[in-house]
Amino acid sequence: MSGRIIDFKTKPSVICWSSVVGKKEGEGPLGKVFDMIIEDDRCGLDTWEKAESHLQKVALGLILDKSGRKAEDIDGIFAGDLINQCTGSAFGIRDLGIPYIGIYGACSTSVLTLISAAEFVDSGKMKLAISSTSSHFCSAEKQFRFPLEYGGQRPPSAQWTVTGAGAALISSKDEKACPKIEKAIFGKMIDLGVTDANNMGAAMAPAAADTIASFLKETQTTPEHYDLILTGDLGKIGSQLLYQLLEKEYSIDIKEKHNDTGLMMYYVDKQDVHSGGSGCGCCGSIMCSKIMNELSEGKLHKVLVVATGALLSAVSPFQGESIPGIAHGILLTDGR
Amino acid sequence: MSGRIIDFKTKPSVICWSSVVGKKEGEGPLGKVFDMIIEDDRCGLDTWEKAESHLQKVALGLILDKSGRKAEDIDGIFAGDLINQCTGSAFGIRDLGIPYIGIYGACSTSVLTLISAAEFVDSGKMKLAISSTSSHFCSAEKQFRFPLEYGGQRPPSAQWTVTGAGAALISSKDEKACPKIEKAIFGKMIDLGVTDANNMGAAMAPAAADTIASFLKETQTTPEHYDLILTGDLGKIGSQLLYQLLEKEYSIDIKEKHNDTGLMMYYVDKQDVHSGGSGCGCCGSIMCSKIMNELSEGKLHKVLVVATGALLSAVSPFQGESIPGIAHGILLTDGR
Repeated sequence: MSGRIIDFKTKPSVICWSSVVGKKEGEGPLGKVFDMIIEDDRCGLDTWEKAESHLQKVALGLILDKSGRKAEDIDGIFAGDLINQCTGSAFGIRDLGIPYIGIYGACSTSVLTLISAAEFVDSGKMKLAISSTSSHFCSAEKQFRFPLEYGGQRPPSAQWTVTGAGAALISSKDEKACPKIEKAIFGKMIDLGVTDANNMGAAMAPAAADTIASFLKETQTTPEHYDLILTGDLGKIGSQLLYQLLEKEYSIDIKEKHNDTGLMMYYVDKQDVHSGGSGCGCCGSIMCSKIMNELSEGKLHKVLVVATGALLSAVSPFQGESIPGIAHGILLTDGR
Repeated sequence: MSGRIIDFKTKPSVICWSSVVGKKEGEGPLGKVFDMIIEDDRCGLDTWEKAESHLQKVALGLILDKSGRKAEDIDGIFAGDLINQCTGSAFGIRDLGIPYIGIYGACSTSVLTLISAAEFVDSGKMKLAISSTSSHFCSAEKQFRFPLEYGGQRPPSAQWTVTGAGAALISSKDEKACPKIEKAIFGKMIDLGVTDANNMGAAMAPAAADTIASFLKETQTTPEHYDLILTGDLGKIGSQLLYQLLEKEYSIDIKEKHNDTGLMMYYVDKQDVHSGGSGCGCCGSIMCSKIMNELSEGKLHKVLVVATGALLSAVSPFQGESIPGIAHGILLTDGR
């Protein structure tokens, strides 16, 4: 390694990807790119938690179907979510009989699982590994904020947790026209003292700035080297803060190259999602649909995905803790 | 890889380890081997959660002190715990400024973080990586069972969550007389339908049996090849179940070579801990004290540590979910 950059020698291939979202996400601007839209947010089940596990189960089923692989072909699955003890993942994966490595990075989990899967494939210890993540608006609201029935008002800085899941199959075999995983960077926790659990964007923006600035510096690149620098998910407020921090602290301007999955998921103003989308399933489902599609089609060539997480629990803000942010980055290319 | 075995080519060295425990653990048979015993279970802080974070902070401080390293020398820290959203780890690590990778495997986290750290060192992507984990009796009881003030009675099958933390520093540089990490195996979730959150041993024993049998089979070894097969933590009931399962299903007898960190931590009958100890901090603190000590002293040569986790949340049993067990294994040797 040079500094913090993780350099994947073999550039593992993303040979298959899948995405499943809920009704509201299906009505957003990306509705047509997802593999599946589940109209019933409970997925016909009796709890929100079971519904979230179901989303991951469906995403994983799609991965196996689309790739023609069986569960026993997969050497390991790296997965995580926002539900306490990552049960969204565990119960979604349980029946597959695949070795399971639980990962927790709040909303940064989508990239953290992808880095982990790529690492074991890159080092030759696995031939096929899956990364998987999910979130669900209702299980998240219930756990982190208020019961839905309470009908609590959300402030304009709040983000809307995406109901969705995304999964990717990573292979050691070089396949042309597949997205490749070239580099990564693990985030440091940065905590500037934000204590408002309804303003996650502000809590996470400093970590995103640190990760992006470190990645650019250590790889000696500028935003112009990328087709897209994609954060997930800072929303409206967090994205503006990110621009300010990068310009002020590092003299870096990413505006022309930047997008945020929290701003891509919904018609932000029309769909009443306040500052935008959030949750592991937001970046997870968009990365495992639109982004992988466009890399494989050659519409995108070089994308730096920086997933951000707010490392709070439902209890920690009430115990006077501020919210540490973290951001893990991964460089995806079209491999051409 | 051959089958499920993770083979570390460079055999990363464990060049430093540290352990911190609470008062009750300090009064157990291993009291003298831990680096530090904190008499006040609140560590002078105002919540149990902050106390748990403090344990990890102290364990990490000890690692840096003992090894003469600074935080900026460390390329990454792989950590996790039982508290919702792994805040025990996040808040304990926050101030160090080390890239942080959150891991969740319930009580199997101690081994899961060690495998992850070893992997990034083995592949050359990190030079120095830390694995760290903790648990706290009071934060766990409060979260998973009853408020302490309620004074609920615990059934004989219950295990006592250890107040403690363990951390290890993994290096790519071969240092003689240091424990080496040779192999590992990721566990599959096994769920035989146990629904009693007060009988974790029974929920985890089938996963431990699967991991141990798979490891022995794939490495073509028998229990006689090891000085110790150490599970953490099945307790009394789970250990007996493990023997029965291994004998009945796989014709393997490990009794002569087996111990369980849940049985080692306390004077089980005298200290009123029912079936024994549990929690990430149990296996974590014993592995990062007695086991590493004895490997470095050459008293132990080859130890298979199999950490077991029960992948439930506080909510899942009430939603009718059974408890999936998982067990991750790691082969530690004296490197001689």
